[in-house]
Amino acid sequence: MSSYDYPLLLKNVLESGVTWTPKQQIFYRDQFHYTYADMYQRVLRLAGALQSLGIKQGSKVGVIEWDSHRYLEIYFAIPGIGAVMHTINPRLAPADVAYVMMHAEDEVLIFHEDFLPLIEKLRPQLATVKKYILITDKAEAPQTPFADTDYETFLATATPLKELPDFDENTQATLAYTTGTTGKPKGVYFTHRQMVLHTLSSAVTLGSLTDFGGVNKYDVYMPLTPLFHVHGWGVPYTMTMMGAKQVYPGRYEPEMILKLIVGHKVSFSHCVPTILQMITSAPAAKNFDLSSWRVVIGGARLPKGLAKAAAELGIRVYAGYGMSETAPILTIAMLKPTMGRLSEEEQMDYLVKTGVPVPLAKVRIVNSEGEEVTHDGKEHGEIQVRTPWLTPGYLKEPERSEALWEGGWLHTGDVAVIDSEGYIQIVDRLKDIIKSGGEWITSLELENLLSLHPNVSEAAVIGVPDEKWGERPLAIIVPKKETPDIESLKAHLKQYADQGVILKWAIPERYEFVDALPKTSVGKIDKKALRAEYVGTV
Amino acid sequence: MSSYDYPLLLKNVLESGVTWTPKQQIFYRDQFHYTYADMYQRVLRLAGALQSLGIKQGSKVGVIEWDSHRYLEIYFAIPGIGAVMHTINPRLAPADVAYVMMHAEDEVLIFHEDFLPLIEKLRPQLATVKKYILITDKAEAPQTPFADTDYETFLATATPLKELPDFDENTQATLAYTTGTTGKPKGVYFTHRQMVLHTLSSAVTLGSLTDFGGVNKYDVYMPLTPLFHVHGWGVPYTMTMMGAKQVYPGRYEPEMILKLIVGHKVSFSHCVPTILQMITSAPAAKNFDLSSWRVVIGGARLPKGLAKAAAELGIRVYAGYGMSETAPILTIAMLKPTMGRLSEEEQMDYLVKTGVPVPLAKVRIVNSEGEEVTHDGKEHGEIQVRTPWLTPGYLKEPERSEALWEGGWLHTGDVAVIDSEGYIQIVDRLKDIIKSGGEWITSLELENLLSLHPNVSEAAVIGVPDEKWGERPLAIIVPKKETPDIESLKAHLKQYADQGVILKWAIPERYEFVDALPKTSVGKIDKKALRAEYVGTV
Repeated sequence: MSSYDYPLLLKNVLESGVTWTPKQQIFYRDQFHYTYADMYQRVLRLAGALQSLGIKQGSKVGVIEWDSHRYLEIYFAIPGIGAVMHTINPRLAPADVAYVMMHAEDEVLIFHEDFLPLIEKLRPQLATVKKYILITDKAEAPQTPFADTDYETFLATATPLKELPDFDENTQATLAYTTGTTGKPKGVYFTHRQMVLHTLSSAVTLGSLTDFGGVNKYDVYMPLTPLFHVHGWGVPYTMTMMGAKQVYPGRYEPEMILKLIVGHKVSFSHCVPTILQMITSAPAAKNFDLSSWRVVIGGARLPKGLAKAAAELGIRVYAGYGMSETAPILTIAMLKPTMGRLSEEEQMDYLVKTGVPVPLAKVRIVNSEGEEVTHDGKEHGEIQVRTPWLTPGYLKEPERSEALWEGGWLHTGDVAVIDSEGYIQIVDRLKDIIKSGGEWITSLELENLLSLHPNVSEAAVIGVPDEKWGERPLAIIVPKKETPDIESLKAHLKQYADQGVILKWAIPERYEFVDALPKTSVGKIDKKALRAEYVGTV
Repeated sequence: MSSYDYPLLLKNVLESGVTWTPKQQIFYRDQFHYTYADMYQRVLRLAGALQSLGIKQGSKVGVIEWDSHRYLEIYFAIPGIGAVMHTINPRLAPADVAYVMMHAEDEVLIFHEDFLPLIEKLRPQLATVKKYILITDKAEAPQTPFADTDYETFLATATPLKELPDFDENTQATLAYTTGTTGKPKGVYFTHRQMVLHTLSSAVTLGSLTDFGGVNKYDVYMPLTPLFHVHGWGVPYTMTMMGAKQVYPGRYEPEMILKLIVGHKVSFSHCVPTILQMITSAPAAKNFDLSSWRVVIGGARLPKGLAKAAAELGIRVYAGYGMSETAPILTIAMLKPTMGRLSEEEQMDYLVKTGVPVPLAKVRIVNSEGEEVTHDGKEHGEIQVRTPWLTPGYLKEPERSEALWEGGWLHTGDVAVIDSEGYIQIVDRLKDIIKSGGEWITSLELENLLSLHPNVSEAAVIGVPDEKWGERPLAIIVPKKETPDIESLKAHLKQYADQGVILKWAIPERYEFVDALPKTSVGKIDKKALRAEYVGTV
């Protein structure tokens, strides 16, 4: 049979965008821009250059780079020849950077010169790496013995491929490591098929984002999630397929970001709450018209206060949810057509939720008895998912992979409730939830409520062993100038218990005051460290 | 490994819509409505009912029905149990209806009572059909020996499935027959994987349709392409996945259609030019506000005059292109972000073109030497395509299948040009093009220009053998009241030759005048019949 069996490959995502809009532009900071057609030619050059180094199907290529047009080229060129793009988080501890590179068996490393000191230090440990390619923003690459060539020379001297080849859609395309709070980083990996389906479902989701016009090819897109973090949430692939104008901000600097948003009329971004906070609270923000900016927020819960502050600047925000294991998109918080009649406040309550599943994603919330919870917004359960774009496991870790996929559903480790409209709300991490006297107490909710106390800057709540009740909550507080007294904290929480927001039972008896909370490499409270300190276990 | 290998099945399309918006409504004419949740329950009932008849993976079920909520249920229930939905065009000649049912080996036939006389006549020939299920719009089903049960009783007495099963995504889901102008109808068939990918790409396309808001879940959808015609262009699947409000018009009647559009504020439809013509020229149209209606036009070239007439009523139209062999979507005519500056007239010139490829579709235009044509809007070539949703061939016709897929690209048989912006414009069918003295003369263009002559009602142009030039064009004219004289027709065409629209060489010497042109079952000019009459060959 001569009929063509079309494989789902990332090159098809790229070619769709380039065919649709070869003249559309891609910007890098305030220093460079080119067209989709130019970008495509450079992808073919990079693909040829990598092949000339012996990179072939299955080879791993490590990348350490800020958000740039070069990273976009890398997103397509490495997987484009069947090799695996290993996106490295440079914020990992140096020992972990070496660990993940050797665990992945990276053969080539493409890295930005900002990380020269890191690479210099690690190089003796990087036994599998045969070639180092240096990225620089300067006109001339610095002379260094720690690189074999620089990115621009590497491309300039390459023989470009005529086109990217066809191969099996189940070929691995990407690899990244996720840092849990326990053990070494774990490798999650995705095939071309998975990333193409992720791209399509994301595009449908974004196209449906609002009632007045979804995100589509007419938008100006700037990522504000690092591209080394779960494929920049997959959105660079999506916006390239659409053929939208793109703006890459490089290393994140609030002033540059604001300048780019306003200068290019950026209409769509995505980021964690911290970045949105940084932008909305920048003094310059009030001087700019941000009313055409729409932002998907993920990575952590979107606080309603932040959503309101953004809304006051005219920014429209939507919460989304996913994780490294899930490529990442799972749910998004969008209004249903029937919700147009709700008040702004009520709409906001939905927009900050964890959301509803995106097309093709199946989400179930399962209680400790293994039953799906009722849709009452109250019963707790673990979020378990099936989508066509989930990691089949952790690289070279069969036992952890089996635990991740127990029963054929991916276990997110997130505890959530679901309401009668089908909106999911995460209330805690499974391992952070406090099991006390037969009740589940969510640490996240207590932390949120404690943070509303006038003298509390930040709060963490962990479970500590209790002979009678199994566990009881311990609150660890970073005070503002004045340290609050414990009775005032209890009285503060009692208000919410009286309103039915939390159980009275959840109010902690014990409070500790500290100057700062330990944080993980991605800025989350490190509960492992807290448990080590206050409980003696993790 | 416990990880779940997610197959792309149509049930996932259905479940996405139902999960997102179980309370959203689906209407049938002015007589019935229910929710997505209800619809899903009836799909599970129909699936169970079909299984009880012995329908299993690979079984073929024939369907003859108008556009209805029942057809939507059928779209999911038959493929949902791994069986094949054979959508039958009731406008085929009766002998061809019997032919396609026996060629397909349909085991069950679900048919609307409007077709009782047809089925009565054919029943002796339908050897493979074991059960007949009658659909009626009446409260009580008519008593007839030609049906074993009626659709509502069939559902009411069924044991519903708990859920639709998983199976291989490459399982065949649908089958339909396409009537060429030569030979018997040919069967084209599509798998679940193909239809899911078609659904996703269509959803991305619709979400990107305009700069002021693509078509998405906030739209009210009414198909105006028969659901028996290439999956209703696939759009019922797409709008169900999105969870949009849907309105099914039943048998097409202009007054009912206008009433539904206005009553439900229908914002999105798709149809052939004839239906749009029927609606825009209905006297009642001027009394209604149609300004929120967006329509994708396919099946035949969208005449600019019709697009303008629609625009005057506030209707926004977009041309699209596809065929039975391609599930069908291939291209759509949308403006690029940079085209907002063009005049309305210039924008309209793009909106009536054949269009640009949708995401994941690859289209090439190949001249008679097998080379891709230059993007100059002039050089002719055949459109050849690759997408993840093309029929692998014609059912049980290996030779025709090979010809369709010669060289690994699906040959559309359409001749087109492509301009510097990448917009494709079909100029003729490959077999209708006239090869004369080394030049290609397009019959369609001559027909269009002849139809602009004040005394011409309709025109067809075919090639007739010519000793000196190979072929020469013959124009066959249906006059208006007064028959035009031949010199006036030539002078009319010469104007366009002088303007460079056509070659002087293309002006026919021979003209014939007739009362009517022969038409195919789908309303196109039957050039096979014309060639038989005027040339003696087809």
